[in-house]
Amino acid sequence: MTDYPVLFEELDPEPRLLMGPGPVDVYPRVLRAMSTPLQGQFDPQFTQYMDQVQVLYRQVFKTRNQQTLLVNGTARAGIEACLTSIIRPGDTVLTPIFGRFGHLLKEIAKRSSAKTVSIDTEWGQIFTADELEAAIKTHKPQVVAISQGDTSVTVKQPLKELGEICKKYNCILYVDATASLGGNALPIDEWNIDIVSAGLQKCLSGPPGSSPISFTDEVAERILHRKHTEAGIRAPGIVDADGPIIQSNYFDLAMLMDYWGPDRLNHHTESASMLYASRECARILLEEGLENCQHRHQLTSRALRSGLQAMDLELFGDPNHRMDNVTGIYIPKECGNGALVRSDMLNDFGIEIGTSFGPLDGKIWRIGTMGYVCRKSNVLRCLSALEMVLNRRGFKTKQGAGVDAAYSIYEET
Amino acid sequence: MTDYPVLFEELDPEPRLLMGPGPVDVYPRVLRAMSTPLQGQFDPQFTQYMDQVQVLYRQVFKTRNQQTLLVNGTARAGIEACLTSIIRPGDTVLTPIFGRFGHLLKEIAKRSSAKTVSIDTEWGQIFTADELEAAIKTHKPQVVAISQGDTSVTVKQPLKELGEICKKYNCILYVDATASLGGNALPIDEWNIDIVSAGLQKCLSGPPGSSPISFTDEVAERILHRKHTEAGIRAPGIVDADGPIIQSNYFDLAMLMDYWGPDRLNHHTESASMLYASRECARILLEEGLENCQHRHQLTSRALRSGLQAMDLELFGDPNHRMDNVTGIYIPKECGNGALVRSDMLNDFGIEIGTSFGPLDGKIWRIGTMGYVCRKSNVLRCLSALEMVLNRRGFKTKQGAGVDAAYSIYEET
Repeated sequence: MTDYPVLFEELDPEPRLLMGPGPVDVYPRVLRAMSTPLQGQFDPQFTQYMDQVQVLYRQVFKTRNQQTLLVNGTARAGIEACLTSIIRPGDTVLTPIFGRFGHLLKEIAKRSSAKTVSIDTEWGQIFTADELEAAIKTHKPQVVAISQGDTSVTVKQPLKELGEICKKYNCILYVDATASLGGNALPIDEWNIDIVSAGLQKCLSGPPGSSPISFTDEVAERILHRKHTEAGIRAPGIVDADGPIIQSNYFDLAMLMDYWGPDRLNHHTESASMLYASRECARILLEEGLENCQHRHQLTSRALRSGLQAMDLELFGDPNHRMDNVTGIYIPKECGNGALVRSDMLNDFGIEIGTSFGPLDGKIWRIGTMGYVCRKSNVLRCLSALEMVLNRRGFKTKQGAGVDAAYSIYEET
Repeated sequence: MTDYPVLFEELDPEPRLLMGPGPVDVYPRVLRAMSTPLQGQFDPQFTQYMDQVQVLYRQVFKTRNQQTLLVNGTARAGIEACLTSIIRPGDTVLTPIFGRFGHLLKEIAKRSSAKTVSIDTEWGQIFTADELEAAIKTHKPQVVAISQGDTSVTVKQPLKELGEICKKYNCILYVDATASLGGNALPIDEWNIDIVSAGLQKCLSGPPGSSPISFTDEVAERILHRKHTEAGIRAPGIVDADGPIIQSNYFDLAMLMDYWGPDRLNHHTESASMLYASRECARILLEEGLENCQHRHQLTSRALRSGLQAMDLELFGDPNHRMDNVTGIYIPKECGNGALVRSDMLNDFGIEIGTSFGPLDGKIWRIGTMGYVCRKSNVLRCLSALEMVLNRRGFKTKQGAGVDAAYSIYEET
């Protein structure tokens, strides 16, 4: 430590265009919403905003679930809140793993004292309904936990049939929609999804740090069997439920229901600025319309992919099950592990693209087109910059081929 | 659900002056910092900001601890991250309870499979060093967990002697500094505090949703004995430590050390806007100077208290151990449970004051003077409004007595 305070400079980062797997550029309206002055957590003005957030996210999730609320943490916090609240010690949890985040779900289930079983598929592929049903028949899980889209592999697992299967076998279906929500359809009631969590930093184009979740009355009831009220705020006569206490206080959804419900029983202090951000993200999405927003993600990905292929880059993953908001491409052998291309893109052109994790680290690049970033000008900007960088780094492409192909997609619509 | 989206209005709450127990009004510079455009989490510009946050909070905590970082959640998330990472199942954890948050620490310890023991004191009182030492001698805890200041009771536990006692008996001292940090001295190295967590929404005058924590190398080593790396990002050859896995993934400080350290191993996606807020909160505090800021809180509380007493209101809690940032007063019998006075203050004068929890609910009001709110003009505004409201609600005071007394404090300095 020095004698004088070290204060550093005012925040003033160089501009970036975030076309990696997320976070992505935040909608300017959302950035502004976060500058709204705070209110007290029990101020009727503020609790009304909390109520509005519930109404907004019910529309986002296409659900009637009363229990639709925010967990105050990043997407991963929402995942853990859901899993640790629904998994009772000793429950069998099936995690079909098709990418990094399947491993995460399994690990969180294990840390919640579940008996975990998993099925695996090659990274870049998804599961058939038959495979899923067979696993459920064999292992008889109480909970199936799966991601809708896993950015690590850029593919999307169909969920409609899985919802029906889980209903048939009477197990709870938890879906991690962090990477997909907003850019890909997810009508949770229609698809029989019992509990879902998401984040803001992908297609909702907000900052990381708030996790919208939703769950059915049946799931709520299951959780309330484990309700324990904090000693410091317990009203006289309150008796704990007889189920095993949820191992986390912060992620105890029984307590969060009390905080978000009419009792407004204090738990944490709601992260007001992130709630403002969450609210504005939903307003922007709903104003555009869920279907319009999904269509925009589809069209933009199509244009980007067409451009990449025209530059002789090879797309990664099952072509029938790609996410509509992130694109994987094999790194050409001329570019080694792709790190120099990524750093040229970032440092010289101000554009962030990603690689992936585990077996795909240094094998694929990932280019995101999500939320505010998901637009024609960014596709063209990215393709033209990539053409320059690739050619300078030894991978030769035909001049303008990528941009021309992208233009063609836009012109045919 | 209706057929058309329900979007609600743009955020535009009526102005409030937040003089409750927190959250409080956010520094305008912090609100602006949150509007900074995002960067990717591994962008060198962003990781540099993460490094700067570590340097800034080392100065705030007056520590050399390498492990000084943010937990992405509210203050309660920071508490749970600390406790669940240091408590091994079966450890004995002593929680000296002098208010609501002592109960919370005990409960989180219990959920982390600790054997919990606690000592209690009347709400509004603190523990003597002898009482604490006796309890430690008797119960031989591995961990002592205590709040520095508990807003529910507005008093502050001295910690210097407790630090020495814990050192002598070789147990880890965890301190919850949520309510006190910034407004009250907390030199953690000098006081032998092993691990500490805080929040932004009190004297740091930021939004809730980020929790600065710090812990010693010895604590880090203890935690690293429980390190398990996530399967989806595990490099070949990595072997798990042999200690029991930490029950939470999100709050696993072994993983957070990897994310904040030179390896930058991905865990959650850092909540960038809240990091910007945390950074600016620390910059403002350090620019003012820790001692100056504490002095401002002391002076402001003194002026407020003098004014309240001059209005014949009775202060709550041990006069020798009051927090310097929040004041408790008994609700006069003329005002019942005080709810009408609070709602008049809020709805008619735009000023939020609080009541308390549990045995003090409806028995005391709590008036906070923290961070940006902690200034003469707000003391005078609050006292004059309170005089109007109290008299209209049947508690008679001498005209101008509160404001005059507050002026006197400022004039003598």
